[in-house]
Amino acid sequence: MTTTQTLRPGEVVSDTPLPVDATLAFIGHIETPWHHRADCPRQGDPVAGPDCTIVLNMPWDQALDGIEQFERLDILYWLHQSRRDLVLQNPKHAEAPRGTFSLRSPIRPNPIGLSNVQLVRRDGTRLIVRGLECVSGTPLIDIKPDRCQFTPVG
Amino acid sequence: MTTTQTLRPGEVVSDTPLPVDATLAFIGHIETPWHHRADCPRQGDPVAGPDCTIVLNMPWDQALDGIEQFERLDILYWLHQSRRDLVLQNPKHAEAPRGTFSLRSPIRPNPIGLSNVQLVRRDGTRLIVRGLECVSGTPLIDIKPDRCQFTPVG
Repeated sequence: MTTTQTLRPGEVVSDTPLPVDATLAFIGHIETPWHHRADCPRQGDPVAGPDCTIVLNMPWDQALDGIEQFERLDILYWLHQSRRDLVLQNPKHAEAPRGTFSLRSPIRPNPIGLSNVQLVRRDGTRLIVRGLECVSGTPLIDIKPDRCQFTPVG
Repeated sequence: MTTTQTLRPGEVVSDTPLPVDATLAFIGHIETPWHHRADCPRQGDPVAGPDCTIVLNMPWDQALDGIEQFERLDILYWLHQSRRDLVLQNPKHAEAPRGTFSLRSPIRPNPIGLSNVQLVRRDGTRLIVRGLECVSGTPLIDIKPDRCQFTPVG
């Protein structure tokens, strides 16, 4: 968390420390063409976006069993470069400050990124996907089948 | 984490302890009609599902500013009753054991639930929504505008 970053006009910082209520385990990482936040697209493109790679750590690579049947996946990842204390934000693209929960900005109390991706193929412990928008090296938290595609399988 | 629960045939447990790589702060909780996991629907219905309530803790209620413009939201919550150690699972509805990441089961190394809901209305620090499927009392982690609805606003 970098709380020393400059605030834009109208931004409001929480002065309540974040409690520690649960813990996350990184189960792998994500490799993308973008090495700095400023280079990342604002929103990934699951059709025309570049191939990115999701690398699973053992033993969670085994948990990919059966994933090939899904064309679309929800990917959850930890936005490790984000500050967590902004309640109101004034992003470059916005006309006025807005609440954190009416933005998909990486700055949030629990900085979890969520992308819906196209699964191009599985290579053993790796998934090649399109539709991500995070920096290379971003820690992986979860992979879920797309909810619409999952229903008929169950 | 309840690792003493019975395993079904073909289920595989990780014997590697989960590392602690990041921490989460609960920013509120969710009230639903369901008080036990067995009562919850398998998938929430954002159109015909019952009204549920998302209650924000201070100061994160301020971060709802601007949310009324979105009809659909992604809600992230912590599945606090779930074990976290299953690599392969054999859910009741499945024909054979499958990898955790090819299921939307609440059992996962990072038990984060994700629902896309319809926003019915905001009542101050509360959101009334349809489409959830979790037990009442589930801790809230994040609220994001639906990605499709968010794009044109930016």
